Amino acid sequence: MELWFEESTPEGWGLKVRLERTLESVQSQFQRIDLYQTSGMGKLLVIDGKVQLCELDEFTYHEMLAHVPLLCHPAPRRVMVVGGGDGGTVREVLAHPSVERAVLVEIDPEVVRVCREHLPTVSGRLSDPRVEIVAADAAEYMRTARDFDAIVVDSSDPVGPSEVLFSGEFYSDLRQALTPQGVMAMQSGSPFFYLDQIVGAVRGLKEQFRHVRPLIVPVPTYPSGTWSLVAASLGEDLGLGVEELVRRYRERGLRTRWYSPQMHLASLALPPFLEQAL
Amino acid sequence: MELWFEESTPEGWGLKVRLERTLESVQSQFQRIDLYQTSGMGKLLVIDGKVQLCELDEFTYHEMLAHVPLLCHPAPRRVMVVGGGDGGTVREVLAHPSVERAVLVEIDPEVVRVCREHLPTVSGRLSDPRVEIVAADAAEYMRTARDFDAIVVDSSDPVGPSEVLFSGEFYSDLRQALTPQGVMAMQSGSPFFYLDQIVGAVRGLKEQFRHVRPLIVPVPTYPSGTWSLVAASLGEDLGLGVEELVRRYRERGLRTRWYSPQMHLASLALPPFLEQAL
Repeated sequence: MELWFEESTPEGWGLKVRLERTLESVQSQFQRIDLYQTSGMGKLLVIDGKVQLCELDEFTYHEMLAHVPLLCHPAPRRVMVVGGGDGGTVREVLAHPSVERAVLVEIDPEVVRVCREHLPTVSGRLSDPRVEIVAADAAEYMRTARDFDAIVVDSSDPVGPSEVLFSGEFYSDLRQALTPQGVMAMQSGSPFFYLDQIVGAVRGLKEQFRHVRPLIVPVPTYPSGTWSLVAASLGEDLGLGVEELVRRYRERGLRTRWYSPQMHLASLALPPFLEQAL
Repeated sequence: MELWFEESTPEGWGLKVRLERTLESVQSQFQRIDLYQTSGMGKLLVIDGKVQLCELDEFTYHEMLAHVPLLCHPAPRRVMVVGGGDGGTVREVLAHPSVERAVLVEIDPEVVRVCREHLPTVSGRLSDPRVEIVAADAAEYMRTARDFDAIVVDSSDPVGPSEVLFSGEFYSDLRQALTPQGVMAMQSGSPFFYLDQIVGAVRGLKEQFRHVRPLIVPVPTYPSGTWSLVAASLGEDLGLGVEELVRRYRERGLRTRWYSPQMHLASLALPPFLEQAL
């Protein structure tokens, strides 16, 4: 008998992943957390029935979410990661040598524990001495946070507890928490299924930021297989020249599988149907 | 009770699409053809259990497959489409006003019949007087074909009848069938699952063509949700300057939802893991 994980959208698109076995299944104070060993795609983290990451493809999402904003800052020192208790975004953030402090604000310590135990390829850098893990509600934490050079919002979708992370009030608090050259990025759903979500995020961020750019990244295990992020900056343009991006990429000694300065700029190109919606 | 179409890969990634009903299910001389009405994604064409197209997302694939090569030819007049009996690629080819003749070489007339009957949004332009439909084996047809300005290979995957369309001999015949400024494009599988297929196509085409470029396009209903194409040209560079592409795009009066001159160039950017494999 074969065991498959299944997730589907209201539009009737569904994902299946063949499993070998369940590594952990726990109900935390906040949500249901399942960690599976798949049969051909590495390990799979699922929260409340929705794929959070799969070892096969997590690099596309984490690399773009962290490196697009961080490379548009000349020398990010203090970085906040909202959500992302799996540690994948923190791993990419720490690859920038200028980073002195990475504060992970994750409401659910159980996510961190499960990923530390079972997902070392993703969570391994959480033990870096530069990392501080804060178990707090990110919306509350953001109200009084200050002096961050970059904030990366690696949240779940805007339903339930994460809904507030897609509000105008949160965007305003986030901007207040940034330094004058500050940058940010957030996930904003599938361009094929959740166009409204991208449009909403871009509009909300434009009220706070000088530069706001949506970008597209493939994630085979997210609904529709293609995801969008929105990046915003108070200082530098997000479509920085390719020469400067290449210089910074090399100077920082980054090693990536999906991100490159060319992919950074390519991901900012938008298909006409999305441009029109914006 | 809900009815779902399901397709999965050997790696254990699977796609599900919720169905309303079966519109047609027929065994032709060559293959099994199923046409479904989905509940939220339009109609779905399946051949031998594999998704060929879905109305939700067919535009990304058909637009890139046709417009990337055709816009790298100054004035394509005679165009061949290999496979693609659904008519989606022909629809995009005919949008170029210089096209005088579009020859569709589809081995299975049943695919054409089913799509004409049930998929007018895709097959509608097959009745254009410039279209000639040839029911033939494309590998055989290619051996004596001559004087095509562009050839678009819209084949199924390289297993069974389509395997020969991914061979060195076919690439050589294809080049012989092209005019001196000739261009071509073909599909080459998922970069996440079938890296060998892209590498093989690029190597094979490089023996015949001056310019060979793989490109990436999201297709939510294909395995992994992201697909690759390879384009090749005997004349112009496939990464033509953006100004020239914009000029041609406007001059030809194209209207597209995924393709744009900027998306054309963006799709040529390759992630490091794919660059290294090449």
